[in-house]
Amino acid sequence: MSESTLTAPLADSTLRLVVPAATLRTATDVLGALVEECRVRFDDEGLHVAAMDPATVASVSLDLSPSAFETYEVEDKRLGVPLERLDDVLSMASGDDLVSLTLDPETRRLHVAVAGLEYTMALVDPDAIRSPPDLDELDFEYSASVTLDSGALSRSVRAADMVSTHATVGVDPDTDAFVVSASGDTDDVAHRLRRDELVDCSVGEAESLYSVDYLRSIVRPIPAGTDVTLRLGTEVPLSLSFATADGAGQVEYALSPRIARH
Amino acid sequence: MSESTLTAPLADSTLRLVVPAATLRTATDVLGALVEECRVRFDDEGLHVAAMDPATVASVSLDLSPSAFETYEVEDKRLGVPLERLDDVLSMASGDDLVSLTLDPETRRLHVAVAGLEYTMALVDPDAIRSPPDLDELDFEYSASVTLDSGALSRSVRAADMVSTHATVGVDPDTDAFVVSASGDTDDVAHRLRRDELVDCSVGEAESLYSVDYLRSIVRPIPAGTDVTLRLGTEVPLSLSFATADGAGQVEYALSPRIARH
Amino acid sequence: MSESTLTAPLADSTLRLVVPAATLRTATDVLGALVEECRVRFDDEGLHVAAMDPATVASVSLDLSPSAFETYEVEDKRLGVPLERLDDVLSMASGDDLVSLTLDPETRRLHVAVAGLEYTMALVDPDAIRSPPDLDELDFEYSASVTLDSGALSRSVRAADMVSTHATVGVDPDTDAFVVSASGDTDDVAHRLRRDELVDCSVGEAESLYSVDYLRSIVRPIPAGTDVTLRLGTEVPLSLSFATADGAGQVEYALSPRIARH
Repeated sequence: MSESTLTAPLADSTLRLVVPAATLRTATDVLGALVEECRVRFDDEGLHVAAMDPATVASVSLDLSPSAFETYEVEDKRLGVPLERLDDVLSMASGDDLVSLTLDPETRRLHVAVAGLEYTMALVDPDAIRSPPDLDELDFEYSASVTLDSGALSRSVRAADMVSTHATVGVDPDTDAFVVSASGDTDDVAHRLRRDELVDCSVGEAESLYSVDYLRSIVRPIPAGTDVTLRLGTEVPLSLSFATADGAGQVEYALSPRIARH
Repeated sequence: MSESTLTAPLADSTLRLVVPAATLRTATDVLGALVEECRVRFDDEGLHVAAMDPATVASVSLDLSPSAFETYEVEDKRLGVPLERLDDVLSMASGDDLVSLTLDPETRRLHVAVAGLEYTMALVDPDAIRSPPDLDELDFEYSASVTLDSGALSRSVRAADMVSTHATVGVDPDTDAFVVSASGDTDDVAHRLRRDELVDCSVGEAESLYSVDYLRSIVRPIPAGTDVTLRLGTEVPLSLSFATADGAGQVEYALSPRIARH
Repeated sequence: MSESTLTAPLADSTLRLVVPAATLRTATDVLGALVEECRVRFDDEGLHVAAMDPATVASVSLDLSPSAFETYEVEDKRLGVPLERLDDVLSMASGDDLVSLTLDPETRRLHVAVAGLEYTMALVDPDAIRSPPDLDELDFEYSASVTLDSGALSRSVRAADMVSTHATVGVDPDTDAFVVSASGDTDDVAHRLRRDELVDCSVGEAESLYSVDYLRSIVRPIPAGTDVTLRLGTEVPLSLSFATADGAGQVEYALSPRIARH
């Protein structure tokens, strides 16, 4: 990649961040579930990413407030970040290690320093990265909301994966249970979590069909022991959100429904 | 598979079992070493399976008495069970979890419930599954018997596997040792366990040649720390048996000998 | 391999060794990093191996004094040893197990006994194995020497591997730091260890380019927690040495430099 693909506004700007490796690794894993590179926006309120997978089936937004960082010195700025390479670098660090990120205004490359390692990373032109639609502007009607442990959610997806490529995610208003179910050629499966097995539950009629592959990709990077909140409806996107960085960050996935066979 | 392949006698029968996941998983692993599906027979004395691998080289019998189950309510019945799918379901459970198995008399499918999971499994026509010969009717002359730890047996097989596809299993009457040996193109190997390294030993002259692939498949699913009893002779099938389900179950493999090169 | 390929001098000789499995396994791993078979020489001062990889890029020498062995009874002798098969046998042993090695003067095969296993190994004609040049006779000018933990060295190599197939290994005389760096098409990386992160350091100007693949192969078998001494210069082979067998053994690798692109 030639450096001329980096946009001029970066030229004189400064960016100096220090952040725990675990925080940054969760961020790259969460984003890497859907895209290979992403546009990161920095402002006074912190770091913001919105991305959509190439097939436009799922999107993700990630926000980290300045309090998630040990050092947060940055002018308003946008960077195009290659996620896999950043993940490679972070794989050399322990979770407690502090990662230092500095933008070199001359070369317009990102210096990543962690645990004795100094990595100089070519960035991607942020204008060459596609924007997702702004999900906040879409007005979906969610009829139910469920909060559960990420491990239980992961088991639900794994159960559906045994028999089909698609899973029905919903709530059963009669029993207040959260249910993920799937039907294969010969076998059916349902994974059911009762109200007392959920962290929180606000139940209405809700049932939509989603791709198991996407569900698996989305659920995999969520750290163990995380409370995940699902907002559900009938044939609407699944909203899946959780806090990160000890509450200083927020992640939200939106996954489009598939049309059920009738 | 259409449901019409399930035989009529199941139609009005009942079957309700509750059993620890670990017990059922050992059973599916032991049977899965030789076959993909098996015919399970239930009567007042418990669950019985006899199966032979497609190449008719090895057979296995498994018996679980009603005391191996928390609940054992079943009329005389035969079911054709797809082992790999049952194993998939059990892989979602912890060993202590209780698995509930119920036959739906209408759909003739097996309901498997464990750890929040409800799996509905299409069964196989039991009449479409080949029967093994009744090994009890075959009158082999065993000249020696050896009981040893499953880990030691596994090491013996692994040793033979280094140099050849066939292993000689026998006892050395001079030294009362159990010996597994193999000869390759350039190298030879012998794994020898002395009487004091065996749990039990009743020694006579015995030596036969067996397939290492089959030995490996048979030994792999035996849980660590299990006492395994081998009955041995000269050019007769190897009998390999052990208790399961805390003594409420019994497994026996029989492996046909290969003709030695002379 | 026919036994006639074994040379006559072995015919009446004796060789009886007893050695901890861990000592022998480190030796086979260290040698196996570069060659599949090697010529082992025995004399009053112990066991000696010198070997060079088929591409003649790297060589290794290994010496184990008689004190590394529980039993060391051997006349002057040379054996050609197939390393992978010996490694297979050792994989059956625990580190504390004692391995007994005996040369059968009749069959000229090596008897390896460990943990109930008796393995009879065909040897390789030692005259058919290529000799490396004697590195002691080559008079390289090393300008710096660094001793560091094997784990830190391994991280350096892994860092370089992220961006390139070649790494620059050197010291920075200004900061007394040991530096491994690499340049890829878009990204650069440097792994830097300051003097206080090194076990020992004697610094002069030194910088050479080496193959990352070779560095990785060489560093991998070095046991965790080992102090490794590097001797460095400008466009000279890298010397990498460490003690083994609790100080009763010594290993030295020499890795030829690559010509840097200018």
